[in-house]
Parts: sequence; C-alpha cells; structure tokens
Amino acid sequence: MNRTIYLDHAATTRLLPEAAEAMEPYLSIYYGNPSTLYELGEKSREAIENARAIIAATIHAQPEEIFFTSGGTESDNWALKEAVSLYSRMHKGRFAHILTTAVEHHAILNTCMELEQLRCKTEYLPVDETGTVLVSKAEEKIRENTCMMSVMYANNEIGTIEPITELAQLAKRHELIFHTDAVQAYGHLPINVRRENIDMLSASAHKFGGPKGSGFLYIRKDINLPAFIHGGGQESNRRAGTENVPGIVGMGKAAELSHRRMKAEHYKVKKLRNYLIGRVLREIPDCILTGSTHRRLANNASFCFKGVTGEAVAILLDTQGICVSSGSACTTGQKEDSHVLLAAGIDSEWANGALRFTLGGENTKEEIDYTVEKLKMVLADMRVA
Amino acid sequence: MNRTIYLDHAATTRLLPEAAEAMEPYLSIYYGNPSTLYELGEKSREAIENARAIIAATIHAQPEEIFFTSGGTESDNWALKEAVSLYSRMHKGRFAHILTTAVEHHAILNTCMELEQLRCKTEYLPVDETGTVLVSKAEEKIRENTCMMSVMYANNEIGTIEPITELAQLAKRHELIFHTDAVQAYGHLPINVRRENIDMLSASAHKFGGPKGSGFLYIRKDINLPAFIHGGGQESNRRAGTENVPGIVGMGKAAELSHRRMKAEHYKVKKLRNYLIGRVLREIPDCILTGSTHRRLANNASFCFKGVTGEAVAILLDTQGICVSSGSACTTGQKEDSHVLLAAGIDSEWANGALRFTLGGENTKEEIDYTVEKLKMVLADMRVA
Repeated sequence: MNRTIYLDHAATTRLLPEAAEAMEPYLSIYYGNPSTLYELGEKSREAIENARAIIAATIHAQPEEIFFTSGGTESDNWALKEAVSLYSRMHKGRFAHILTTAVEHHAILNTCMELEQLRCKTEYLPVDETGTVLVSKAEEKIRENTCMMSVMYANNEIGTIEPITELAQLAKRHELIFHTDAVQAYGHLPINVRRENIDMLSASAHKFGGPKGSGFLYIRKDINLPAFIHGGGQESNRRAGTENVPGIVGMGKAAELSHRRMKAEHYKVKKLRNYLIGRVLREIPDCILTGSTHRRLANNASFCFKGVTGEAVAILLDTQGICVSSGSACTTGQKEDSHVLLAAGIDSEWANGALRFTLGGENTKEEIDYTVEKLKMVLADMRVA
Repeated sequence: MNRTIYLDHAATTRLLPEAAEAMEPYLSIYYGNPSTLYELGEKSREAIENARAIIAATIHAQPEEIFFTSGGTESDNWALKEAVSLYSRMHKGRFAHILTTAVEHHAILNTCMELEQLRCKTEYLPVDETGTVLVSKAEEKIRENTCMMSVMYANNEIGTIEPITELAQLAKRHELIFHTDAVQAYGHLPINVRRENIDMLSASAHKFGGPKGSGFLYIRKDINLPAFIHGGGQESNRRAGTENVPGIVGMGKAAELSHRRMKAEHYKVKKLRNYLIGRVLREIPDCILTGSTHRRLANNASFCFKGVTGEAVAILLDTQGICVSSGSACTTGQKEDSHVLLAAGIDSEWANGALRFTLGGENTKEEIDYTVEKLKMVLADMRVA
C-alpha cells in the first residue's frame, strides 16, 4: 500500500477541487484590487460579496455581519481583544472579566493570557470528564464586570460538542457578548446564530475544504466591535488590508458545498468513525476513548493508549502511510500533556498516549481496516520494547 | 481595441504564472498542516522554510528574521502596535512617542490614530512639495520618549522614494527602532536592511507578482517584538495561525523572480513611464506631475489635472478599457482629497484632479500611446462640458 491514508482532518483538509476551480480565475485573470473603480476591480468585489452572501446564509446571518479575516486565529484574536477594548471604552478603562473554558484552542487561551497583562481577568468554566462545560456551574461565575463568554463550538482534540445554546442563553440573560470558536464545527454541524443566540463566531476555511489563509468572523449587527487591524476602508472599515480574493472565493465555494453535503457526509463519516472506535476498543488493550460518546463531532475518534507516547505512535504510523496527530496539530512538538485531557481529569499516564483520528468524506472502510491493523502492530511492538 | 490596459500596478499586480505554478501543488496534493509530524506536513514545512530563505536573501536578512503575515497591513499593524507595547512594558507603562510622516499609507496613519487612544503620541515629520521627508528637520522632532520612527520606503500615490538610509541612520544614533512600510518598494527596488540599518520592514506579496493575502514582516534579530496575533506556536511563537502555505510559496517565487528581473524591468518600465510623462506634460494643458522627478519609483506617473475630478476621469478611461486609479486604491470612494497631495502642499483645486498611472513589465508603447490619446479625449470632453 503506497498511498497516504489521511486521518487528520481536524488539522486541515484537502482543498475541494470545486473550490480550487472557483479560485482559479481570481488567481489568473480577475486580479483587480476590489477597492478600485474599474471593471476589473468590480469583478473582484462581486466575487467577495457573493462569498459573503453564501457564508451568511449558512449560519442564518446577514451578509453585513460576515467579516473576512486571515483565518480562525485572527478571528479569535479580534473577537476577544476588541470585546475587551469595547468594554474598556464603554466603562472608562474599567477592568473586564472574560469567561471561557480550559479546553479552548490556544488561539483563545493565549489571547486571554495576553489580555490578562492589560485590563482583563479571565476565568475558566469547569468541564466534566468528557470536556463538556457544566452549564449548571456557569452562572455562578458571572460577575458584575463580565463582558463576554467565549466557548468553543466543538473541541479540536476530543471532538466534544459544547452546550452552546444553553450557554448563549445564559449569556444573553446576563447581557454578555457570546462568542464561539467554531473552527472545528463550521461546515460540519448545522449552526443557526439567530436561534442559538450567538453574537460572534470564528471559522477557518481550511477546516472545511477551503484554502489556508482565509477565515471569517461573524459579528452580530448590533455589536459595535472595534477593528483589530487598521488601515484602508475594506470590510466596512472593520478589517483593513487588500482582500484575499481567491481565498475568499475558495472559502465561499467550500462553505456552500460543505453545507450542501453535510447530512450525507455526516452519516457516512460517523458510521466509519464508529466502526473505527468499535474495533480499537475491542481489539486493543489498555485503551480509552476520550471525549463524549454522544455529544461528539461525527469525524472524531480520540484515544489514549497506556504505556506509549502518542507522538511516537503517530511517527510510526506515518512510516505506514497513515497521517494522524497526537493531540492537536497546533501543539505538535510541545512536550507537555494536552491541556484538554488534563482539564477532563485524565491523568498524565494516560494523556501521554493520546492519539487523534479525524476522518473525512474520502476515507474508506478498507483504509480504516488497514489503519487498525497497523495501529495494533505498532502498539504491540512498542509495548513489548 | 477590446483588451484591458492595466496601468494600476501600485494597486495590485497580476499573479506571475511561475508563482501560480509553484502554488499549485500546495493547493492540491501537499495540503498537510505544517505543524504536523508526518511527511505530508513536512512537505509544507519545507516549502515555507524555502520561501523564508529566498525572501531573507533578497533583503540581506537572516531567515529567522522573516515572519509571514496576511499582508502589508497586518505587518504594519504588528510593527507599530507591538513596538509601542514593547516600549510600554520596558518603561512601566510610560507614554510612547512615534515619529512618522503625513504621507504614509493608511495602514500606518490609522494604526497611529488608534494607538493615540492608548498610550502613545504620534508626530509627523515634515515633507517638501515632492513628498520627500526633510531629513534636516527630523532630528529636532525626536524626544526622550520616542520609541520608533516609521517612514515608508516609497509612496503609493506619487511614487516618491524617501531618504531611508539617512533617516535610519538618524534613528540608530538615537536608539530608535526604524520601521519602513516597503509595500510599494519591495520587489521593485534593491533593499539591504543591514546596510540601510532598517530594523523592521513590511511587504505585501500582491504588489510584486505574488498572491493576495500574503505578506511578511522583517524583524531584526535583536528586537524582541511581541506577537500581535496569539495562539499556536507557528512562526517561532511570533505569529499564530495555520500558515497560508500556498500563499507563502507563491510569495517566495514572486520574490525570487522580481529580484532576478529587477534591473531589466526597472530599465524597461522607467523608459516607458518617462515616455508617458513626457507626452502628457507636453500634450495636455493644465497638468502637473506630482512627486519627485528623480527620487521616484520607476513605474509611477502621477498627475493632477485642473478642472476635473480624478475619479471621473478614471471611470471614463475604464470605458475605454484602461485601468488607472485616482489617488490610491485603498481610499477609493472617499470624497476627501488625497492626504499625500495635501501634505505636499498641493491645493484642493489641483488635488481633486489626481490620477495615478503605475506601469508593469507587460505594458507596451502601443498601450501608452492609446492611453494618452484616450486621456486627451476624455479630458477635452470633460473640460468643455
């Protein structure tokens, strides 16, 4: 077997051929700067607005509530930093308080750490052993100066889907801005920002079949979030810089397709994922499934194997043509245990052996069978050694 | 004549076919996340480091001094905001003072305006009637709390090349960080950050034949500039977010080619530009050339025509297939006169009729002749009406 079995769709996805095709003219012939008056610029402008309308529709927002960014991390930085800045301006420099969780992506956690150096205090909502936020414990954490709650839609390591509707409802009752990092969820789960009372939402194109370097932040119309990147008047004066036209076009096409195919893909991927989980738990000793069994992204199968390091397993699987990650891609090379697993109460002995399989629509049962066989082989070898 | 004559290369450039070709595999087959351990990720990582080495060499920097961003605007925001933040941290919250010029791009000017709301005061170095900073007047503006000087390498509207070496020398003598927004210069002029004592430099790929959505910030090794976008450990913990691999690869290829072709292109474009300027000044009445005659980007021909609005002229030229801008692309639609022309002391009567032609390597003498004829026609019609 000489081909690559890609089981790391939470790290990034292959650009959809239709998205590549949609981008192509904007990489070659329609290269005008969208801010110019002439027809060549108009072409770019139209393409951007078309993508904006498509994306807005997917989450039941208005087009003017969608702002294009360079990706999920920029969106998260913008949302958090400027929500604090907005609070500070409205309350004459008063210290702000942010509620988030200990299982967030580092784009949230490290932004919070940065904000703590300025005019902000962060507190972390408690999670249970599946990484699910305990809604019942959330309300007591709200203070008089709490300005926002930021909770990820679904976890990038263990796939747990958070109780967004309940948390956003709570935030609304207390007049807090509710932000969700939906980088792992958007394009994979149906999201309705109106019905779910989401005020801000971050997404990243390359997680749902779009290109790297493109993302968006949804900002509800009545939230006067200041700009994070200043300069020209692009994005209604909210995000300066010449627009990444091909990137936006590719993201729009991927958004359209991932939503059109969502149901079928969800069904197919979940079935395959359940097959993988079943085989691994049955056939491999000293192994646990991390995260929730029912509130879980359809494509995520994350395990901890006792007595091995996940990184070493991933490297050995790579020699067999299998791409998986230990923990998340963004923390590769770090020697610490996953902050997500620690927050879920999984001890170091297990957390060290974390391995994440995240499936995509193109994976087959044959690939999963091959993967399980190789995984058994690698683990048996390592555990004997 | 049915084709498009593109004379707005300062707004954006067509992606070089070689850059598109270099990007293609990273848009299709090599889609791995550079932060992963497996071979597919390694491919992306290598491609990024290759681009970094190419770009570093073009400005005589070290690879570890090049940080990839989403474009020139992000680079400018990062440089200015975090230089102030660095000063503030080192001097226990003391107010910082920034020196810049009134002819900068809005990515600098609006970032300074934003900084003024926090812990910073900005002052503008005076320029002469060509938009050139008066070096002799710069030193007296330096205060005890001045932390940086930021002067653009070349102006985006009138093409004036600033006396960077002299200003950077002055900054060095006073131990100020010297930053230059080289968005219009990089890829068009030879730059040597070592010899010119440049501490930080911003550039944008789409201004030199690379893709939109990609840029870089050069940060001299011994400047401990904090991160602007926080999250994962990408870019040596200085710029979080999954790297825009195809964008970086395309920028690297464009950087390589624009530098290899610089001399020949400079010669060709300058000759054609001089021909355009000569014909316009000779054949069209009530017209001035703005900017400097000798310290000027080779591709820039910017004029003011009395009695018309530049925007209207640009729109009428578009109907003839000619793409030009009034002022800069990033301010299109604004009704105010150009801040650059005002700073150069050009009064409103003239500034209102500003028109910028910026040439590229693919333009021909025939296109210039056609453009001059159409310009004469349009102006004659407008001035009679």
